[in-house]
Amino acid sequence: MPKKICISVIGSGSGDDALSPQIAKIANEVGREIASRGAVLICGGLGGVMAEAAKGAKEKGGLTIGILPGEDPGSANPFIDITLPTGLGFARNILVAYSGDAIIAISGRLGTLSEISYALLKKKPVIGIHTWNLEQLSGRMSSFKERAYNRDILIRCENAKDAVDRAFAIIENKEKCQNGSN
Amino acid sequence: MPKKICISVIGSGSGDDALSPQIAKIANEVGREIASRGAVLICGGLGGVMAEAAKGAKEKGGLTIGILPGEDPGSANPFIDITLPTGLGFARNILVAYSGDAIIAISGRLGTLSEISYALLKKKPVIGIHTWNLEQLSGRMSSFKERAYNRDILIRCENAKDAVDRAFAIIENKEKCQNGSN
Amino acid sequence: MPKKICISVIGSGSGDDALSPQIAKIANEVGREIASRGAVLICGGLGGVMAEAAKGAKEKGGLTIGILPGEDPGSANPFIDITLPTGLGFARNILVAYSGDAIIAISGRLGTLSEISYALLKKKPVIGIHTWNLEQLSGRMSSFKERAYNRDILIRCENAKDAVDRAFAIIENKEKCQNGSN
Amino acid sequence: MPKKICISVIGSGSGDDALSPQIAKIANEVGREIASRGAVLICGGLGGVMAEAAKGAKEKGGLTIGILPGEDPGSANPFIDITLPTGLGFARNILVAYSGDAIIAISGRLGTLSEISYALLKKKPVIGIHTWNLEQLSGRMSSFKERAYNRDILIRCENAKDAVDRAFAIIENKEKCQNGSN
Repeated sequence: MPKKICISVIGSGSGDDALSPQIAKIANEVGREIASRGAVLICGGLGGVMAEAAKGAKEKGGLTIGILPGEDPGSANPFIDITLPTGLGFARNILVAYSGDAIIAISGRLGTLSEISYALLKKKPVIGIHTWNLEQLSGRMSSFKERAYNRDILIRCENAKDAVDRAFAIIENKEKCQNGSN
Repeated sequence: MPKKICISVIGSGSGDDALSPQIAKIANEVGREIASRGAVLICGGLGGVMAEAAKGAKEKGGLTIGILPGEDPGSANPFIDITLPTGLGFARNILVAYSGDAIIAISGRLGTLSEISYALLKKKPVIGIHTWNLEQLSGRMSSFKERAYNRDILIRCENAKDAVDRAFAIIENKEKCQNGSN
Repeated sequence: MPKKICISVIGSGSGDDALSPQIAKIANEVGREIASRGAVLICGGLGGVMAEAAKGAKEKGGLTIGILPGEDPGSANPFIDITLPTGLGFARNILVAYSGDAIIAISGRLGTLSEISYALLKKKPVIGIHTWNLEQLSGRMSSFKERAYNRDILIRCENAKDAVDRAFAIIENKEKCQNGSN
Repeated sequence: MPKKICISVIGSGSGDDALSPQIAKIANEVGREIASRGAVLICGGLGGVMAEAAKGAKEKGGLTIGILPGEDPGSANPFIDITLPTGLGFARNILVAYSGDAIIAISGRLGTLSEISYALLKKKPVIGIHTWNLEQLSGRMSSFKERAYNRDILIRCENAKDAVDRAFAIIENKEKCQNGSN
């Protein structure tokens, strides 16, 4: 009775900036690709990238979970099947980062950066599309191990299918290793 | 596309006390009754009442979510489909209490008491089986509105089927009211 | 360079019920007694018992910390020196419970009950004045170890001075044991 | 009775990398400068930059608060006056970020990046010394408002005195504005 594979999708909410049609399309495709592979989509439950990805997952009959910052389940976007109203505000970001077997980051701003930080801290695979580039840090940090570390782990992809393929390849490889001879 | 009904089951873990066979049986039946009605079972993901209830839900083909105190998804009991490893310790109790449309408390100790407190604070229906009795407070508190309040909300049942029936009756009645005349 | 002794004061906020003059007076005295002994007063930072206790502490030149549920430091009562705006909502209750070397509970409702639960779970000494009585649980729970356990730990006092005396006696005795021969 | 000014100091812990003597010296000086100005130093309570900064503050008779990830107050470094053992793990990072009137980031890795993200999200002034450079994001992000935004807010300084001077200048200016014409 193996546990279900969960993919967290993080990125821009529906805040002050309108979501560009390009980013919305990518988010929708990421959601569809996740559901097509039978995985659960986890997100922050609100608008923007979260709603587009959840919409995509529902179009393919997937299951969606929204880990909400507020206490009101009614604040979830209409494509969320299971709402977890945390009341923790932005501290719920860590839960989104920890809950995925892999994390796909699409665009996004400071909240997304906090989630990427937490996911990498927990050594989760993070696949980024048009998002923060941790490689290009200042020269001051260049001697730190993080640069090399992050280059390996924060994988950059250009489109939805590549990103989800990459996430599943890492998860399956990890499972293979864990079930293997060591 | 209505969101799924979620029932949180709270109660004794597998700590220092062995779970009595009576309590284990009730927890298993509660899980089966929840799954039979097509609802999602949410719990704290560990042993004791949580594992028995999740086992019951899986026996009936239900979906189970474990909101874990630790950061390791591997700490979940084997009957959890979706693990949310929070790393929040006992602070994750509030998430279990907030995530259910109703809460069923079976036996339990201080952690369960914190969850009952939070659930009642959010005006969630709480159905208790062999658990804390908030009615029997000290005389000092008897003049407080809580007594009357809690008597209405913390409903005591003797068996699993009654408890789950009661939970669903409240949830359905609430939905009827919300879809009603306003 | 020993760390400062901290006492958490928990109890009714300024919600729907007016704080009775009797409870307000006790809270004020508790704050004064804590500050008179050179300890730091920690509370939830809002009104009611929290504000009265912090006011008392400031009248005696004490230091006060408010662990706020919201993100706005401006929501603290005017007697708080150091505000910790958590944004965690009621989940901040666990922080108030964990931060005190002892906890003094004055009256209070469901939020206070969650804090008492957490404090006892962490085996903190809890001194209660006109608050929840965990001894009087239902007969169903009577076979549980909690009853005996809580009777020892949730100490009931009738007035402010006794409560603070008791808290300090326990803290000092504990320090003596830890520095002792065992 | 104005509330005390609090400065949060964030940065590398004592993890796998040894703290460089240069970074340790800067952290110590930042602590001394904060205490010299009568402000409270808040940090994560552990080793590395946190311990060096707290040590500096104590050398100047300042007050130090450690917001610990664990539940054990004993895990604090010896220069912490007031321990807040949260049990929240890395989720405590948001509390460190929210609690300062300004945040000074010294070196640091992924945990520090999460704190910088949260501090900027709350529009707190963040002064960075040899730390993450949010300006140098990838070309993909260059069209986002964040770039301009962060350039204004994440201020880079080369030494401890400049950093603390800058933090106080911003805090005092903000207070002046708030007490101004409205």
